[in-house]
Amino acid sequence: MNTIKNQKLGRRSIKFDNPPVIIGTASTVGTKEGDGPLSKYFDKILQDDKYGMDTWEQAESKLQKQTCLDALKHLSLKPQDIRYILAGDLLNQCIGAHYSARDIGVPFFGLYGACSTMTESLSLGAALISGGYADKVMCATSSHFCSAEKQFRYPLEYGGQRAPSSQWTVTGAGCAVLSAYGSGPVITHVTTGKIVDYGITDINNMGAAMAPAAVDTMRYHFQDTGFCPTDYDLILTGDLGVIGSDIFTELLLEEGYDIRELHNDCGKMIYDLQKQDVHAGGSGCGCCASVFCGYIYKKLKDGEFDRIFLMATGALMNPAIIQQGESIPAIAHGITIERGKR
Amino acid sequence: MNTIKNQKLGRRSIKFDNPPVIIGTASTVGTKEGDGPLSKYFDKILQDDKYGMDTWEQAESKLQKQTCLDALKHLSLKPQDIRYILAGDLLNQCIGAHYSARDIGVPFFGLYGACSTMTESLSLGAALISGGYADKVMCATSSHFCSAEKQFRYPLEYGGQRAPSSQWTVTGAGCAVLSAYGSGPVITHVTTGKIVDYGITDINNMGAAMAPAAVDTMRYHFQDTGFCPTDYDLILTGDLGVIGSDIFTELLLEEGYDIRELHNDCGKMIYDLQKQDVHAGGSGCGCCASVFCGYIYKKLKDGEFDRIFLMATGALMNPAIIQQGESIPAIAHGITIERGKR
Repeated sequence: MNTIKNQKLGRRSIKFDNPPVIIGTASTVGTKEGDGPLSKYFDKILQDDKYGMDTWEQAESKLQKQTCLDALKHLSLKPQDIRYILAGDLLNQCIGAHYSARDIGVPFFGLYGACSTMTESLSLGAALISGGYADKVMCATSSHFCSAEKQFRYPLEYGGQRAPSSQWTVTGAGCAVLSAYGSGPVITHVTTGKIVDYGITDINNMGAAMAPAAVDTMRYHFQDTGFCPTDYDLILTGDLGVIGSDIFTELLLEEGYDIRELHNDCGKMIYDLQKQDVHAGGSGCGCCASVFCGYIYKKLKDGEFDRIFLMATGALMNPAIIQQGESIPAIAHGITIERGKR
Repeated sequence: MNTIKNQKLGRRSIKFDNPPVIIGTASTVGTKEGDGPLSKYFDKILQDDKYGMDTWEQAESKLQKQTCLDALKHLSLKPQDIRYILAGDLLNQCIGAHYSARDIGVPFFGLYGACSTMTESLSLGAALISGGYADKVMCATSSHFCSAEKQFRYPLEYGGQRAPSSQWTVTGAGCAVLSAYGSGPVITHVTTGKIVDYGITDINNMGAAMAPAAVDTMRYHFQDTGFCPTDYDLILTGDLGVIGSDIFTELLLEEGYDIRELHNDCGKMIYDLQKQDVHAGGSGCGCCASVFCGYIYKKLKDGEFDRIFLMATGALMNPAIIQQGESIPAIAHGITIERGKR
C-alpha cells in the first residue's frame, strides 16, 4: 500500500511535501533578444536566427534541442539520466519539441498550452517527481519569431504592418531539469488553470485575451494556498505584455488583491520597450522559458528572491477558428518557487 | 514527509500500487464508423458529421465536448467533481480540446501526441490520481475525418485520390473518467514511449512510420515489467492499420516476442476493411479513444478480458516539415488495464 499524503489544496492547487528541486537550467535566445536588457543572463545568444539550418522550423527545433543538451551539459548529466522530457512549442503539431526530443532519445510527453506551456511542463514534471515516478525530468519549450509569424500571421517577406497591441514572438528556448534531490530552487505549489474566454476576437491583442485567465488562476492560487500577495517577492506572468499586464493588475485590484508593486511580466522584461520596436512586448512559449531559465533562475540562486509565483499564460486558438468567428480562449498555469537550501 | 513507495519499474515503466479505476467512459462516432462492425458498442452515433455546426472544426470540438459531458452523465457526476481534464486532438493548436474544455470549465492540461494522445492522457491521468493529486480526472481525445483531411491533406472538395497504404481518420471521440476509488477496470502499469524515427517520409504510410515506435515501447514494457505476451488476453495498438500491424508483429517476432495471436489494432477493428473502402484502416486520436471507450471498456467490464495492453501510436510530423524533407517521427504510449473487482 502506498501511504501518500493528500497533496491537494482547495479546488485547483497542489502542495508538494517533498518539493522537487530545479537543479539546473539552460537558455538560448535569438539576436533581437540578445540585444535586450537581459542579454547577460542568457546562456547562449544566436548570431544567426536560422541557427545554420535551411528553414525556420528546423532552426526552432535545433534551438530547443541544443538548449536541452546544454542543460544536461551544465549538470554533467547524460540523456539516460533523465526519466522523461515534457515539452512543447507553438508550431502546428508541436514539431519543434518532437524533432528535438527525437534526437535526445528520452521518454517523452508532448504538451500544448501555447505560451503557457513552460509552466504546464513544470507543473506536470514536478508532479511526476513528487509522485515517485521519476528522479529527474526535463521541462522545455521554445518559440521562434520567424516560424510563428509565418504560421500565425504573414510570411516575413510580405512585410505586414503590426498593430500597436501586438506582441513580438520571442526567438528563444529554455530547459529546466527537475530532480527529486539535490540543491537549488524548489517548486512548492502548483495551481492549474482552466480555460477562460471573455470573448476577445482580436488576434493582435493576445494580452487582453489572456489577462482574465491569469486573474482566474491567481485568485484560486490565493484562495487554495492561503498565500497573500506580500508572501511573494515577485509575481511574474508569462507574457501578458504591456496591455495584458495592466488589465491583469487592475482586475486583481478590483478583487481586492494589490500586486502592482510585485508584478512583472516576461514579455515586458525581455525587450527594451522604448528602443526595440516590439509594440506591446514579447510573447511565445520561449519568452517565459528563456526569461525564467536565464534570468529568474539565477536570481533565485543568488538569493535575490526568496519566493516567486511564475505563471505563464497561453492563448489557445488557431487562425482558422478565429476566421470562423470564434473568440480566443486562454489559460494560465502557475507555480510557486522558493529559493531552497543553498 | 511523504513515504511514497518507488513506483518506477526499469527504464520507462510505472507500476501503480493503488491502481486508478476507470469508473466510466463515453464514446461518439460519425456516420461511417456507425456503419462499421463495432456499431452497437458506441454510446452515440452522429446522423450528421457536421453535428449541426457550421464548420468541421466546430463539429470536432462539439464532438469532444459532448462526449465528455456524456461520460459525466453516465456517472451522475458534475464538472466540479473532476479535478483535471487531460485532452488533445489532431487540429493545429489542439483547438478541438480547447473549445471543448472551455465549455466544460475544469482545470485543463493540454496534450499533443497525435494518434497516441489517448494513452498519453490515460498515463498522465493515472499518475496524477495515484500520486494523490486528484480524486477524479477525465481523459479525452477526438478526431474528425473532414477537419483532418482539410488540414493534413487536401480539402474534401478537391476529391484527391488516396494511396492504398493511407488510413482513414476516424470521426469519433472517447472520454474515460479515472478515479482513486470505485469499481471497474484498473490501470496497473504505464510504459512511456520515446520518439522513434526509421526515416519513413511517405505521409501516406503512417503505419510503417509508427510500427517501430510501437515495437520499442512493447519491448521496454516486457523488459521493465517482467510480463510476457501470454500474460495478456489482448495487445491492442492504437492505429497502426493493416500495414503497420504486420510490420509491428513481424519486428517483435524477430526480437523473440510472438504476439500474433494476441494482437489487434483499433484501426483494423473500427471499419469493415472489405466493404468500407478505407484502404489500410482507421487512424486519428479518436480511433483508439472511441474503440477503447466504446468497445474494449465494455468487454473488460463483462469479463471477456482479464488483462490487456493498450498502446496508442502517433506520427508526430506536420505537412510543412515533411515538405522540407524531414522524415516522420513516431511515438507509442502503452498502459496495462486489468478487469478489476466486479
